[in-house]
Amino acid sequence: MATQSIGEDEGIAARFAAVRALSRDIAAPLSDADATLQPHPDASPAKWHLAHTTWFFETFVLRDCVPGYALHDDRFPFLFNSYYEGEGERHARARRGMISRPSLDEVRAYRDHVDAALAAAIPGLPPEALALIELGLNHEQQHQELMLMDLKAAFFENPLHPAIWPAQAPAPVTAPSPLGWTEGRSGIARIGHDGRGFAFDCEGPAHDVLLRRHAIADRLVTNGEWRTFMDDGGYEMPALWLSDGWAWVQTEKVRAPLYWVERDSGWHRFGLDGLQPVAAAEPVMHVNYYEADAFARWAGARLPTEAEWESAAAAADPAAGHQLDAAGPVRPLPGGALFGDVWNWTASAYLPHPGFAPAEGTVGEYNGKFMCGQFVLKGASCGTPRGHSRASYRNFFYPHQRWQFAGVRLAKDL
Amino acid sequence: MATQSIGEDEGIAARFAAVRALSRDIAAPLSDADATLQPHPDASPAKWHLAHTTWFFETFVLRDCVPGYALHDDRFPFLFNSYYEGEGERHARARRGMISRPSLDEVRAYRDHVDAALAAAIPGLPPEALALIELGLNHEQQHQELMLMDLKAAFFENPLHPAIWPAQAPAPVTAPSPLGWTEGRSGIARIGHDGRGFAFDCEGPAHDVLLRRHAIADRLVTNGEWRTFMDDGGYEMPALWLSDGWAWVQTEKVRAPLYWVERDSGWHRFGLDGLQPVAAAEPVMHVNYYEADAFARWAGARLPTEAEWESAAAAADPAAGHQLDAAGPVRPLPGGALFGDVWNWTASAYLPHPGFAPAEGTVGEYNGKFMCGQFVLKGASCGTPRGHSRASYRNFFYPHQRWQFAGVRLAKDL
Amino acid sequence: MATQSIGEDEGIAARFAAVRALSRDIAAPLSDADATLQPHPDASPAKWHLAHTTWFFETFVLRDCVPGYALHDDRFPFLFNSYYEGEGERHARARRGMISRPSLDEVRAYRDHVDAALAAAIPGLPPEALALIELGLNHEQQHQELMLMDLKAAFFENPLHPAIWPAQAPAPVTAPSPLGWTEGRSGIARIGHDGRGFAFDCEGPAHDVLLRRHAIADRLVTNGEWRTFMDDGGYEMPALWLSDGWAWVQTEKVRAPLYWVERDSGWHRFGLDGLQPVAAAEPVMHVNYYEADAFARWAGARLPTEAEWESAAAAADPAAGHQLDAAGPVRPLPGGALFGDVWNWTASAYLPHPGFAPAEGTVGEYNGKFMCGQFVLKGASCGTPRGHSRASYRNFFYPHQRWQFAGVRLAKDL
Amino acid sequence: MATQSIGEDEGIAARFAAVRALSRDIAAPLSDADATLQPHPDASPAKWHLAHTTWFFETFVLRDCVPGYALHDDRFPFLFNSYYEGEGERHARARRGMISRPSLDEVRAYRDHVDAALAAAIPGLPPEALALIELGLNHEQQHQELMLMDLKAAFFENPLHPAIWPAQAPAPVTAPSPLGWTEGRSGIARIGHDGRGFAFDCEGPAHDVLLRRHAIADRLVTNGEWRTFMDDGGYEMPALWLSDGWAWVQTEKVRAPLYWVERDSGWHRFGLDGLQPVAAAEPVMHVNYYEADAFARWAGARLPTEAEWESAAAAADPAAGHQLDAAGPVRPLPGGALFGDVWNWTASAYLPHPGFAPAEGTVGEYNGKFMCGQFVLKGASCGTPRGHSRASYRNFFYPHQRWQFAGVRLAKDL
Repeated sequence: MATQSIGEDEGIAARFAAVRALSRDIAAPLSDADATLQPHPDASPAKWHLAHTTWFFETFVLRDCVPGYALHDDRFPFLFNSYYEGEGERHARARRGMISRPSLDEVRAYRDHVDAALAAAIPGLPPEALALIELGLNHEQQHQELMLMDLKAAFFENPLHPAIWPAQAPAPVTAPSPLGWTEGRSGIARIGHDGRGFAFDCEGPAHDVLLRRHAIADRLVTNGEWRTFMDDGGYEMPALWLSDGWAWVQTEKVRAPLYWVERDSGWHRFGLDGLQPVAAAEPVMHVNYYEADAFARWAGARLPTEAEWESAAAAADPAAGHQLDAAGPVRPLPGGALFGDVWNWTASAYLPHPGFAPAEGTVGEYNGKFMCGQFVLKGASCGTPRGHSRASYRNFFYPHQRWQFAGVRLAKDL
Repeated sequence: MATQSIGEDEGIAARFAAVRALSRDIAAPLSDADATLQPHPDASPAKWHLAHTTWFFETFVLRDCVPGYALHDDRFPFLFNSYYEGEGERHARARRGMISRPSLDEVRAYRDHVDAALAAAIPGLPPEALALIELGLNHEQQHQELMLMDLKAAFFENPLHPAIWPAQAPAPVTAPSPLGWTEGRSGIARIGHDGRGFAFDCEGPAHDVLLRRHAIADRLVTNGEWRTFMDDGGYEMPALWLSDGWAWVQTEKVRAPLYWVERDSGWHRFGLDGLQPVAAAEPVMHVNYYEADAFARWAGARLPTEAEWESAAAAADPAAGHQLDAAGPVRPLPGGALFGDVWNWTASAYLPHPGFAPAEGTVGEYNGKFMCGQFVLKGASCGTPRGHSRASYRNFFYPHQRWQFAGVRLAKDL
Repeated sequence: MATQSIGEDEGIAARFAAVRALSRDIAAPLSDADATLQPHPDASPAKWHLAHTTWFFETFVLRDCVPGYALHDDRFPFLFNSYYEGEGERHARARRGMISRPSLDEVRAYRDHVDAALAAAIPGLPPEALALIELGLNHEQQHQELMLMDLKAAFFENPLHPAIWPAQAPAPVTAPSPLGWTEGRSGIARIGHDGRGFAFDCEGPAHDVLLRRHAIADRLVTNGEWRTFMDDGGYEMPALWLSDGWAWVQTEKVRAPLYWVERDSGWHRFGLDGLQPVAAAEPVMHVNYYEADAFARWAGARLPTEAEWESAAAAADPAAGHQLDAAGPVRPLPGGALFGDVWNWTASAYLPHPGFAPAEGTVGEYNGKFMCGQFVLKGASCGTPRGHSRASYRNFFYPHQRWQFAGVRLAKDL
Repeated sequence: MATQSIGEDEGIAARFAAVRALSRDIAAPLSDADATLQPHPDASPAKWHLAHTTWFFETFVLRDCVPGYALHDDRFPFLFNSYYEGEGERHARARRGMISRPSLDEVRAYRDHVDAALAAAIPGLPPEALALIELGLNHEQQHQELMLMDLKAAFFENPLHPAIWPAQAPAPVTAPSPLGWTEGRSGIARIGHDGRGFAFDCEGPAHDVLLRRHAIADRLVTNGEWRTFMDDGGYEMPALWLSDGWAWVQTEKVRAPLYWVERDSGWHRFGLDGLQPVAAAEPVMHVNYYEADAFARWAGARLPTEAEWESAAAAADPAAGHQLDAAGPVRPLPGGALFGDVWNWTASAYLPHPGFAPAEGTVGEYNGKFMCGQFVLKGASCGTPRGHSRASYRNFFYPHQRWQFAGVRLAKDL
């Protein structure tokens, strides 16, 4: 991560309280059983997210920086370490859904304990520890979005299609605006994080890139446009697909985005507000890289590169757009902001920026070791806590994954 | 099943109340999350057992035999049908662990609703409906034992090894009695259920079998004897094993019974009372057919056939021995009864008795369709509700399965 | 095996020459590449069969009983041991298809070498060694049938459907005879091999069984009858199937016997004579236990037990019927013999006869260790070398397997 | 592909003859069985390579451009199409090893037929057809290297470790030169194919890239250095590995490069010249991306990017170095050339160059559809036909694959 720049205890204490509260709010409507479900090995139980983010603070701040701190429960590190090899053995990822005990309430108590200890400790912590808190808060915000993703996956497994929040009033039936194109910057541009303010290690260093002439769409691809792609046989034409993507379509018998369910009354999509009709004007969500790439080819366009997108976003406000302000069902809305609604798939592999060096210590396992086989997504989604994103932010997923809140913004050469 | 022979409402009403209460008691210490866990595809969540047994009564008695009965929740049949093809589509077995909703309390309410409706209906039910209740009660007793098995499997997945009941005082350290042999009956013997009193369809018809001279051990194989087998290299000698068994040992790297954990202080076994030292004098439990067969070969003996065992048991009291009287940790004890402690693996494949015909209707799917690839176990275990077993009872599992409460009684030719 | 009773060198020398010649003849039309194919892990390359049967004689007779014999190639035992744990490490079964070298001609030279050494040695061999030769010849006859099965499986993988032998003239289009029933023996009957003449260890000992009143069909089920089953929706009705069988039908999308291919001109079946129309009057072949059992249920009948079949066969000539006399395409023909055409699936699990004890030494690994999970087939097929079978013969396969020449003879209770 | 620039019939006819002859020479020592083996689904039988490259000429040149040409065998397209969806159905890739017929000699006859027809047709062919021949020749050269790779994989499966060519005299035991670093070009550089002469479509278009200060090693990593990495625990330190790579190491229990076998006398490597001692001074070969990346991290360096490598190679002679001049065992030798010995793994994902557009028509399926999840390798190997490579050449493999002739050249930031 970049250097810690906040520098004042009160700021970080308030921010700590706010971030921790949001996680609790997301989990508020959950039963103990809800919070225990692990729908697939890439997802984790809500309970685990709540405890793992707490373990992060307990381990790297309280244990390492606060003399005399005693672990809340010395059996928890084995259960709630995620993948830090440097932190020793841990419970198998694919079996996280077997942990009925500790209960959700016990995990809440664990959070309370650590929150209190940390709040008490903050005034006396050195800058390095504050920087670790800042890292932990950003880490927790990531898990807030993951928790929303994983809950959606979990409840979708239930044939009753439960809603954990009431549905919002449907968006007024507006046709989306006609798609427009904005020419991007050409020539040498600078991207990557410059070290001012917090960023994850993988966002830096800032560096120059060379851009050719191109344009980026001024809005996201909509559900209505995706229906046209489907009706045109998009899922049946091998020429539109990458080889791996076509194999995926055939093996999985894919014919629509994830969470789409066809009923007599038409296509519906499942969400944390239950099963609702697909709204044509809303951005399409829950498509993977293969689908995004195939759609772009079908549309005679392509996906933007990370550098093109980041260059375009340099002037945008990362805190604008439809992002997560409070717990509730996440839903993208018509609009044109670069940030918010859905993550934008890019055509760029998730690889180190030139000159990248991982953070020191165990926390340096955080990003670099995933730099293989994944693609970069930019922006933020309706499930991203507002304030968490930046132009340099690098989200990443494997090309077959689509349980994240991801959609498509087109680009083209000029 | 055989004809219903109880024939009086009061008896069945009381029995219904007692059986239903035991299921509740088993689930009493469970949290909602505990009751939702599915540790592997052969096992089911406790919640599912509680609901499925209720669905059986609601479907085959209330829906089919009580005019005007309205389903408690018309979404439940899809969730809680197990495998009756005749009852339509159902939730995928391997995904039962995804059902956080309905909650355990909602399932308890479902039970209350059906219990009340059934209690009210019993006085007016025709004999065929009472016979279905009797079948349903026996079905529920089977699920009580399954629930104990599945809970044990689920909690064993938790690295914290939680105990849901306190451990009983350890058995006095008694050496087991020396193994004795009892000569069995030779010549023509009659086995199979004769139709008097309740039995599952697969237990009949009664028929003659021809027995050669043989003897059956007067007690079960103990943990201590199993340790000797292990120390003698039992799990490393291919000559002791069936071909499929040897492949299983090597693939799964097996070196002890299921739930045995080696600690610095020696071998322990996990149970619903937590992790406890292995008691040498107690019968070995949680071994599969491959292990039972290999042990017998190592011991210079063999497993009894179903007919030998059943013939020997004709004079035994099926309600004696260590069986389940109340909810609690199940644990076999030293002793020699044919019934109780652990199920006895036999050398007999689970195939139809001569002249077998399945019960009529959907309930006829109950047993016959599993008559392939499994072996018969006889007797009863410390997890079998007392009163549920008979000499003709046929339990059955695949040779690789060992999460049931199964052990070994030897036999030999004379 | 039972005691060797032939006792004269000339007889066994001639028989040795004849059996060895048939293996060569079966392989005569094969190219080196043909003989190297392994179509699936249960099948082996023809080259492997030719070498493995030779390895058996070289190991258990020449190496063990002929002083001074030097192995033809000391690298071959690793390659051509099948599963005898007592004979040490061996090449992985599933990778047998990777052995292009030694070539087919080198394997033929290996055979010549061992044949010459054995022919030279026979006059001086002790009875135990002659008994091992007898065992080896029976072993080789089994592999002759396996070689035919495996070649059929291998060539079926080739989209060109090559024929390695010319098709025989089609059988005259005769309707099969109406199905008749023959009442079998009731009461105590004696089955199992009595020790006179050669038999595999698993066929004994002779023992009494108790038979109830029953009848056995006087001919096999035909292709035409199977078509009726198919047209009646036999593969779509779960109530006809064992639970494991129904899972198999759905997973594998089965709708006809193995090797049946539907063309515009109707159903064809692949054989070593290429793709030919299905002949309605011929016995159905290449169905597994699940299919045989489902068909019998559909027909209102059942499969015979091993004891019923063997009792019926006591008076039959095991050398009659359509069996293998010379290399060529194997094809069952209309007719009623108990032996020949196709193996008869029985309803009996392959388990030890009462009092069974494996043969001494490594060859004792031969049969006993497979006594789990498989079903017995009786008789002989059009691919069984004539002279190889007996009433007590026990063939065995897993219920899902169907690449063997197996069909259906019905039975029923009286 | 770029425009065809040779433009004279004699040149292409001679080149056609030479390329086709090399394929035959590689296959010369093979038996029919050798040529039929498919060691794993990513590899193909030699016979298939010989036929598939021929099918390419027959289909896209003779069938499409030569009026009146009749297919040599109309059953071959189904067998020998590789993955061109536009060319219809084809035999399953994973089952290519089942094609014993046509025989190797029949495939050779197929080659002769097509060669003669093409030689006769060349004088009258239009430029577009000549361009397709040029493409076909480059395609065949790729398959020559693949054939060598796949043969090596196939013979390695044989426990006898057969050599198909004699071993060359061992390289004099020379210590490798000390590793030196060459500073590369910084700033804007031009890479990608400029359209002059043949290139595959994916190599273009030429475009500018921005390079930062860096240096590239002046020789490849050697076997001796790899041994040091192994001895230092390189395969046991998770911190050195990408997350996916570490999972691969643990699942596959990897502890050395592919084809390395440990014997009492030390490490050997298998090759088409049999099992030979590992030569410390030779470049390491058969390591995958995970291994290359981990080694670089261990060495305090990194892999070069594609642009860095290509920029460095602009001044190098692509026809220099140890490349394939004639059929024989392929073996890298000590030396420093950028081209030859082993392919150089780069840190760059295989993605489209800016402005990339696939070739028109079915042949356009050739490269673009694989642009996902793979990494670029540059240069050429000892198995690459000399004359086939260029600085802009883009070879690509998945990060877990290592049966190709791939090694490691280090780079670092300055």
